[in-house]
Amino acid sequence: MGLGAVFLSISGVSHVELPFIAACRREAVPHTPVWLMRQAGRYLPEYRAIREKMGFLDLCKTPEIATEVTVQPIERFGMDAAILFADILLPLEPLGLGLSFEKGDGPALARPIRDVAHVHQLPEVDVEDSLSFVFDTVRGVRERLGGKTALIGFAGAPFTLASYAIEGGGSRNYLETKRFMYSEPEAWEELMRKLVKVTVDYLNGQVAAGAQAIQVFDSWVGHLAPEDYEKAILPHMRDLFSRLDRSVPTIYFGTGTPGILELIASAGSDVVGVDWRIRMDEAWRRIGHDRAVQGNLDPLLLFAPLDTLRARVKQILDETEGRPGHIMNLGHGILPQTPIDAVRCFVDTVHELSAR
Amino acid sequence: MGLGAVFLSISGVSHVELPFIAACRREAVPHTPVWLMRQAGRYLPEYRAIREKMGFLDLCKTPEIATEVTVQPIERFGMDAAILFADILLPLEPLGLGLSFEKGDGPALARPIRDVAHVHQLPEVDVEDSLSFVFDTVRGVRERLGGKTALIGFAGAPFTLASYAIEGGGSRNYLETKRFMYSEPEAWEELMRKLVKVTVDYLNGQVAAGAQAIQVFDSWVGHLAPEDYEKAILPHMRDLFSRLDRSVPTIYFGTGTPGILELIASAGSDVVGVDWRIRMDEAWRRIGHDRAVQGNLDPLLLFAPLDTLRARVKQILDETEGRPGHIMNLGHGILPQTPIDAVRCFVDTVHELSAR
Repeated sequence: MGLGAVFLSISGVSHVELPFIAACRREAVPHTPVWLMRQAGRYLPEYRAIREKMGFLDLCKTPEIATEVTVQPIERFGMDAAILFADILLPLEPLGLGLSFEKGDGPALARPIRDVAHVHQLPEVDVEDSLSFVFDTVRGVRERLGGKTALIGFAGAPFTLASYAIEGGGSRNYLETKRFMYSEPEAWEELMRKLVKVTVDYLNGQVAAGAQAIQVFDSWVGHLAPEDYEKAILPHMRDLFSRLDRSVPTIYFGTGTPGILELIASAGSDVVGVDWRIRMDEAWRRIGHDRAVQGNLDPLLLFAPLDTLRARVKQILDETEGRPGHIMNLGHGILPQTPIDAVRCFVDTVHELSAR
Repeated sequence: MGLGAVFLSISGVSHVELPFIAACRREAVPHTPVWLMRQAGRYLPEYRAIREKMGFLDLCKTPEIATEVTVQPIERFGMDAAILFADILLPLEPLGLGLSFEKGDGPALARPIRDVAHVHQLPEVDVEDSLSFVFDTVRGVRERLGGKTALIGFAGAPFTLASYAIEGGGSRNYLETKRFMYSEPEAWEELMRKLVKVTVDYLNGQVAAGAQAIQVFDSWVGHLAPEDYEKAILPHMRDLFSRLDRSVPTIYFGTGTPGILELIASAGSDVVGVDWRIRMDEAWRRIGHDRAVQGNLDPLLLFAPLDTLRARVKQILDETEGRPGHIMNLGHGILPQTPIDAVRCFVDTVHELSAR
């Protein structure tokens, strides 16, 4: 089926509301909207063809190519939302941490934060100056999509950004991050405040450039005990959401969060992301039905036989009980090895089974 | 404080019940018992001194040295339970998968399971023949401990064993494991049945040799969606617990399980392990107060200032509300970099704050 749209009339001006935006607002939709985290990426041959010619960071910084990559999955599969091609770590570069992406090794920070003095010395970031290429991509994608598909902007959440900034890259146990958080509580607060500031400026800049929704990725926040999340992170997340341009809906995403869903929800986003480690009905009940939810298929189900995949899509849809305010997605990013046929099956099955 | 003990009189014979065993049975205890997962390990200089002279697998297979290593932390810190020094993957060796441990790289299986035929061909394992060194270690430790400290035997749970058997080692996403589980459901069932069989024989052999409690490690089961756990794993866990020698208490441990705690509890163990990603009061309520619980300090809190560590120990004790049936532990294994002073502080603080 095609991309349905709801016609609304506000202040006498008729306009089309996209299903993805309507679902974020918990309004009625013609079908459950669907997109996939990391949908613009290595599982797509057309993406790999571009990456053979240029590095990841160069791609992020070249708006016309980043635009092309952003719309590739939309053109192939017809998801209900595109997500800006960028990386959550881009703001760490103007913060002076020395960002690079080594082939196959993930991100690396040349100058990780390891002491209090470094936190004090972090520069103020002028996002219009240092991250304007992202805003250019937002404008380019909006033009390419022609209003038919929603565009999501995004950024990393302060804890997840701090984990990379302190570890110097990915981590298994977040030893340095947690040691810093426990041992230097005042510097931790200052670091969170500085990361909130740049993130708010960066996201509001994306909205100003045309992003129609915002997702905040707190991918690793589920490694924290509830007590630590509540004391050291949550106040900053509330501050962040209170300072965002709320003319567009906001999504707060994390993984490993089934033990702290109520706290995650209390940060104040319009939509709460749910990973695959909890049933969607249980998750939504705990988040509260006055909020929209996004998720929650295990990305590994895209490696299952298609009948199994379809059955699980149906189960998640059943668990939402047809309540407005559900956006279908994976519980985490799609893996590079994912077969393309499974992605097509996922998107089409959501549209078919949820058609109203 | 010393290791308290409760005097009970059963059938007229007076005997001493250890606090750890009493807590597993939800009986009154003089203090909350405490031990640490991986407490016999690399954070201890006396362990590292032994490992300089011999490899990990050789150590597991040398009962007198494995005995020595098992009691090292007890002699230094006075935990309420010792845990057999061994590895959850030992049964994969007589299954013919070719187990080795490369320095710093973790376990590797030379012949991972990648097709249905391999599952059919897995040999019957005679644990008395192939794993007798473990039973010898159990006997050696019981003798060394002299009845003053409980000895826990253990094994890996079928899913976690299967994940190593199929991936050929550790994994980030369990791609091959889940693909096999989804694509070959009958072979998956057969694999689970075979792993349950060897695990039951192995654990009952440990009990026969003198293990006073049994912990089943399902460390990676929290990577599964509830639906997958319920259909493909839980029936086998119930089968496993129903076939164990229940003259000793059983503990079922996993991480990342806050979304499936009720299912985990329904597997049938006496004690349910809780990781640090959920509050203990919330976890115990969902598990049910008719079961004992074990946990749940974030292992990274052992890197915090000692005052912070003590405050968090107190918080977990407060969350148990003095209800019988709580065993203090970390939410996952202790890290090799952990400072020894923090381990001592953890054990002593539990004993001091919980003294009744």
